[in-house]
Amino acid sequence: MSITTEKPVIGILGGAGHEGSGLALRWAKAGYEVLLGSRSAERAAEAAAKLNAHAGGATILGMTNDAAAARAGIVVMTVPFSAQVSTAESVKALLEGKIFVDVTVPLVPPKVARVQLPASGSAVEALQQMLGGKVKVVSAFQNISAHLLADADKPIDCDVLVCGDDKDARDVVIGLAAAAGMRAFHGGPLANSAAAEALTSVLISLNQQYKVNVAGIRITGVPYLAVSDSVAR
Amino acid sequence: MSITTEKPVIGILGGAGHEGSGLALRWAKAGYEVLLGSRSAERAAEAAAKLNAHAGGATILGMTNDAAAARAGIVVMTVPFSAQVSTAESVKALLEGKIFVDVTVPLVPPKVARVQLPASGSAVEALQQMLGGKVKVVSAFQNISAHLLADADKPIDCDVLVCGDDKDARDVVIGLAAAAGMRAFHGGPLANSAAAEALTSVLISLNQQYKVNVAGIRITGVPYLAVSDSVAR
Repeated sequence: MSITTEKPVIGILGGAGHEGSGLALRWAKAGYEVLLGSRSAERAAEAAAKLNAHAGGATILGMTNDAAAARAGIVVMTVPFSAQVSTAESVKALLEGKIFVDVTVPLVPPKVARVQLPASGSAVEALQQMLGGKVKVVSAFQNISAHLLADADKPIDCDVLVCGDDKDARDVVIGLAAAAGMRAFHGGPLANSAAAEALTSVLISLNQQYKVNVAGIRITGVPYLAVSDSVAR
Repeated sequence: MSITTEKPVIGILGGAGHEGSGLALRWAKAGYEVLLGSRSAERAAEAAAKLNAHAGGATILGMTNDAAAARAGIVVMTVPFSAQVSTAESVKALLEGKIFVDVTVPLVPPKVARVQLPASGSAVEALQQMLGGKVKVVSAFQNISAHLLADADKPIDCDVLVCGDDKDARDVVIGLAAAAGMRAFHGGPLANSAAAEALTSVLISLNQQYKVNVAGIRITGVPYLAVSDSVAR
């Protein structure tokens, strides 16, 4: 599959993990150039090689988080909660003027099935404050099971809430979700990410109680307005 | 429809509002004895009379919140956030040994489409602390649009997250939801109510942005285990 020049290059920090790898594979198959970042360039290269074997000719490049953040037009972060602030801080200067998609869920082990939001509200709001107004922080994909992402040819039976204070940036992320096989909706301002963040613990709780691993949500009663991924330029 | 003696009597505090009235109507039609409470006995009687005209022979009784809490086996509270603590406090002694279903959403006007959870986490946790261990507090129905409830013969295209620290009490509420035409799921401990509480603001935001009034969620990837309302004895 050829890479069109209109599509932004997507960098995924923490991309060697399950969630990041699933997103990387789906975007690569949709024709995006994907840079898979990790703290270790070696680990990133290994993960990228594995994914490329499934990517149907598309090429995912493995590199350090720094290199991915520097070269990408849109930066996505899929790291554990404990690494959220430090990872974003380490690439802060490289994010200026870019959309930064945070997928972090504030899970506090060992009770990950119990909602434990920061006292300040959503975790991502603190991140936006730290990064400042020159970075357009958008929160998304917290409720998508990595199991669902992994089967890259299947549409996903879970919708995405996209929260952020910049509506155009949210539109871009809605387009990226569509490219990866998901319906996404404008969830409102960044503060509303608290709902998606809290919901992940509820979905983990559902998985445990009902003995499944793909609990998710669908939005009902709202017309889905498909946004072409062409807005993601 | 005759009232079977096996079903608990349901008292609804703040039942003259849209959410409480919709639940009252649905439970009355399902054969429950429903006591509709309000601060004003007169207002309760008026609301009950209106509902009885639609209830197909069932009888909803209007009375004060105190009287409803005293006579009911299960007490449901559907009041605005600003009245949550004071209403529950006023009937505290009448709730001992009972299931108390809190439907309150911590909406902070004027920005009701913005998630503004209390710093302590979910609003209902503070309520359980105030009421003490002898009251089984369960959180449910926060995400159900009053518009959906009002059309009492239609099944509802939105699922219910039921959170609470007592699993048997959650089962009873799942049965009550089924009786009212809704699928409900065990959402986990009371702390997880934060997700449902936050989600309501997101649903209001979706309603505003997409110009609808019935935004909701469906749980996906989880088998729905219908619980008979016979457990609600």
